[in-house]
Amino acid sequence: MQLASASSLSDNELDTLLRRPRVDLPSIFNTVAPIVDAVRERGDEAVNEFTAKFDNVELGRAPVVLVDDLPDPQLDATTKAAFDTAYDNIRKFHEAQITAPLHVETMPGVVCERVNRPIDAVGLYVPGGTAILPSTTLMLAVPGQVAGCKTMVVATPPRSDGSVCPEVLYVCKKCGVTHILQAGGAQAVAAMAHGTATCPKVHKVFGPGNQFVTAAKMLLSNSEAMVSIDMPAGPSEVLVVADGGADPVHVAADLLSQAEHGRDSQVVLLATPDADVDAILKAVREQCSTLPRQEVAEAALGNSCAIKVDSLEEAIRISNRYAPEHLILNVANAREVADVVTDAGSIFCGRWTPESVGDYASGTNHVLPTYGYARMYSGVNLSAYNKSITIQELSESGLKSLGPHVAHMADLEGLEAHRRAVTLRLGMD
Amino acid sequence: MQLASASSLSDNELDTLLRRPRVDLPSIFNTVAPIVDAVRERGDEAVNEFTAKFDNVELGRAPVVLVDDLPDPQLDATTKAAFDTAYDNIRKFHEAQITAPLHVETMPGVVCERVNRPIDAVGLYVPGGTAILPSTTLMLAVPGQVAGCKTMVVATPPRSDGSVCPEVLYVCKKCGVTHILQAGGAQAVAAMAHGTATCPKVHKVFGPGNQFVTAAKMLLSNSEAMVSIDMPAGPSEVLVVADGGADPVHVAADLLSQAEHGRDSQVVLLATPDADVDAILKAVREQCSTLPRQEVAEAALGNSCAIKVDSLEEAIRISNRYAPEHLILNVANAREVADVVTDAGSIFCGRWTPESVGDYASGTNHVLPTYGYARMYSGVNLSAYNKSITIQELSESGLKSLGPHVAHMADLEGLEAHRRAVTLRLGMD
Repeated sequence: MQLASASSLSDNELDTLLRRPRVDLPSIFNTVAPIVDAVRERGDEAVNEFTAKFDNVELGRAPVVLVDDLPDPQLDATTKAAFDTAYDNIRKFHEAQITAPLHVETMPGVVCERVNRPIDAVGLYVPGGTAILPSTTLMLAVPGQVAGCKTMVVATPPRSDGSVCPEVLYVCKKCGVTHILQAGGAQAVAAMAHGTATCPKVHKVFGPGNQFVTAAKMLLSNSEAMVSIDMPAGPSEVLVVADGGADPVHVAADLLSQAEHGRDSQVVLLATPDADVDAILKAVREQCSTLPRQEVAEAALGNSCAIKVDSLEEAIRISNRYAPEHLILNVANAREVADVVTDAGSIFCGRWTPESVGDYASGTNHVLPTYGYARMYSGVNLSAYNKSITIQELSESGLKSLGPHVAHMADLEGLEAHRRAVTLRLGMD
Repeated sequence: MQLASASSLSDNELDTLLRRPRVDLPSIFNTVAPIVDAVRERGDEAVNEFTAKFDNVELGRAPVVLVDDLPDPQLDATTKAAFDTAYDNIRKFHEAQITAPLHVETMPGVVCERVNRPIDAVGLYVPGGTAILPSTTLMLAVPGQVAGCKTMVVATPPRSDGSVCPEVLYVCKKCGVTHILQAGGAQAVAAMAHGTATCPKVHKVFGPGNQFVTAAKMLLSNSEAMVSIDMPAGPSEVLVVADGGADPVHVAADLLSQAEHGRDSQVVLLATPDADVDAILKAVREQCSTLPRQEVAEAALGNSCAIKVDSLEEAIRISNRYAPEHLILNVANAREVADVVTDAGSIFCGRWTPESVGDYASGTNHVLPTYGYARMYSGVNLSAYNKSITIQELSESGLKSLGPHVAHMADLEGLEAHRRAVTLRLGMD
C-alpha cells in the first residue's frame, strides 16, 4: 500500500492516487460480442459450448433446470441456520422498502396516482468459478421474491460434475427462484437476455460478475435484446476511515477482506492524525501472510493506498470525491459522521461493523455500485425489481379547470391535435 | 390505420401487427460515435461546429450560459398562468414521492438504514428544432429541484438568432436550473457527459430526443464518461382502449395527438364490440385533414392499427403484451380496469382524461418508457434524481449474535479475511 499525506496533495494528485484500476471497455466489448452473437443465434447449443470451453464442464444436456424438479439439498444445521438468519434479515430490510401507492389530488378534480408492478421476468447472475457464492443468490433473489417477480432465473456455472451447489439450491428454493441456468460468463447473460429453447427471456439482468459479465450486460442493454441491467459493476473496493480509537488489527482485517476479492480490488485507508497508521500497515502485512488468498490480496494491495488526513472532515471530503462502494467509518460517533456522506454504496458504522456483516447477513444488499458509480447509482434494492406506472383521472370539472392551460401550452408548442383533444371535449372551439 | 380483429389472430400475428417501427441501432451508433468523440476531444469548439452544421446557427461564443446571467423573460399573463399551474401540479406530485429514511432493526443490535442523496449534477435534454418544448423542461427540472440536485444543465438548441426560448428560460429560472447549454443532438449529450470548458460534467443525462440523442445517451452510458441515463427512449406511442361509451370524436383526437408527434410514432386502437370503430376511423380522417402537422400524422398512421377485441379483458391482455408508453382507458369504470394493467408508462382514465393533460400539466411526468421498455423501466420520477445509500451499525452484542453466522458463511465461500474481520473482533479464533 502506497502511503501519502493529504495535506501535501492537490485535488488532481489525490484523484491520480485514488485512480481505480483501468477497465479497457472497448477491448472487452470486442471479446464479448461474438459470444453474445453466438448465443443469440444458436441458443443452448452455443451456451454449452462456451461452458465446455471456459468452465471445462461438458453438461451433455440442456443448461436450464427447473428448481421444482431438483430434490431438496441436504445441509447441516449450522449452515441452514446461517442462511436462514441472513434470509430473514435481508427479507426484513427489503420488505421495509415496499412503498404504498401514491394518490394525490393535484387540483380539484385532477387525481394523479402511482402504483408499482413487478418486472415479470428477471435474470440473476451469481458468479461461480472456484468459489461458490450462495450469498449473492440471496442478495439477488430475496428482493425479487418480495417484489413478486413471476420468473426468476439464476445463472451460475455448473460444478465440475455438472451439479448445482447445494447452498445455492437451498437459497433458490427458499426464495422462489424458478429456473437455474447452469452457465456463467457473457454466454449466461446473453442466454437470459435473448432467451433460448430452455431459458426464459428476462426483462432485466442483475448481479455482479467479472469484466466479461459486466461487458455483456452493458452490450445487451444497448441492443435489440430489450433488456435492462441493474448497474455496470466494476472491481470491488472499500474505503476505511480510522481514528485513534480504531483497533489496528480490526482495520487491517477489514482492508484485507476487500483485498482478497480479486487482484483488481482497491482498498483505501484514510487515517486521522491520532490513528496509528504504522500499526495498521504492520497488521495488514502480518495478516496477509497467513491468508489462503494471500497472493490475490497482495496484488490488490498494489492498487491501494493509505492516506494521512488532517481531520475527519477532510477524510469525508476525500471519501465523497472517491464515492466508494463500501465505506467503513471506524471512528467515534460514526453514525453522525454518516450524515455528511454524500456518495457511497453502503456505510459500515463504528467499531463492531465489519464489511463482512453487510456482505452476508445484516440485511442490506451487497450488490453495490463500484468504480465511482455510487455518484449516480443505488445498490440493488426492492424498487429495482419493480416499475412504477402513473395514473391520472380527471373529472369533467377537473378538465374544465386544467384544460384551458393545457390547450394554451399545446398551442405554444405548435401541437394542434394535443390542443383539440382538450377543446373538443370541452366544446371550446 | 390497418384494421384487424383480435379473434382471428394468433399471439405471433398480433405481435407482428403491433411491431414498432424498427430502430437500426448499430447504424445510428456509427453515425453518432464520431460526434461524441469530437466533443470529448475538442469540447465547446466541436459543439459549436455541430450546431452550425445541424442547426444552422453560428453562436460565435461559448455554448453555455448561466441562468442567473440572463434577464427575466417577458411572458404574457395567460402563458405565465399555464406554466405556473403546470409547475404547481408537477411539483406536488413529485414532492409526494419523497420517501422518509428507512430505519430497521433486523435483529437486536443490528440496525440497517437507507437514506437518499441527490445526484450532484444532472443534464436535462430538451428537444428543440422547429418546436419549442418548455413542457419537457418542466418535466425534467421539477424533480431535480425537488431532489436538490446542485447543478442542473438544460441542453436545448439555440433559436436562429442565438437566443434562448423565453418559455424555456422562464421554466429554468422557476426550477433552479443553473446552466443552459445551447446545443442539441448527440453533441449536446456528449458535452454534458464529458464536460467542456464551459459545460459542467454531469453524472446522469435525462430526457427524450430523436434517435441520435438516444444513441448518444446509450453509447456514453457504456463508456468511460461515467454517466448514467434515465432510459433508452424510442419513438412515442399511445394505445387507446375504447368502449361503446367513448365519443368517437374524442378517441380520434387522442389518437391524432400522438400521431402528430413524429412520423415514427405509433398509435393503436383497441375497440370493444360495442364501440363504433367506423365512426372513430372516419373522425380520424376528418380531423387529420385539418391538422397543421397533417403530413406527419398521416405517416404515423401508416405504422398504426385498430383492432376489434371480443372483450375488455382481451383488450387489457393485448395492452399488457404491448406495454404502451401511454394507455388511454376510455371505458366505463376505467380506474378499476387500471388495476389489472401490468405494463404501461402512464394511464389516462375515463372520458375526461386526454393524454394532453399528462403531457403538460396534470402532475405526472411525460418522460416515459417507449418501445416496450415499460416492461422494465419506470417513467422519470423523483427517485431517478437520487441515489440511496444503505447504512448499518452493529452493537457489540449485535455482532455477537450475527457474527458466528457471518463467519460460517464466509468460511463456506472460502473468504478467510472476511471471516477474520468478524472473529478477530469477537476473539473467536
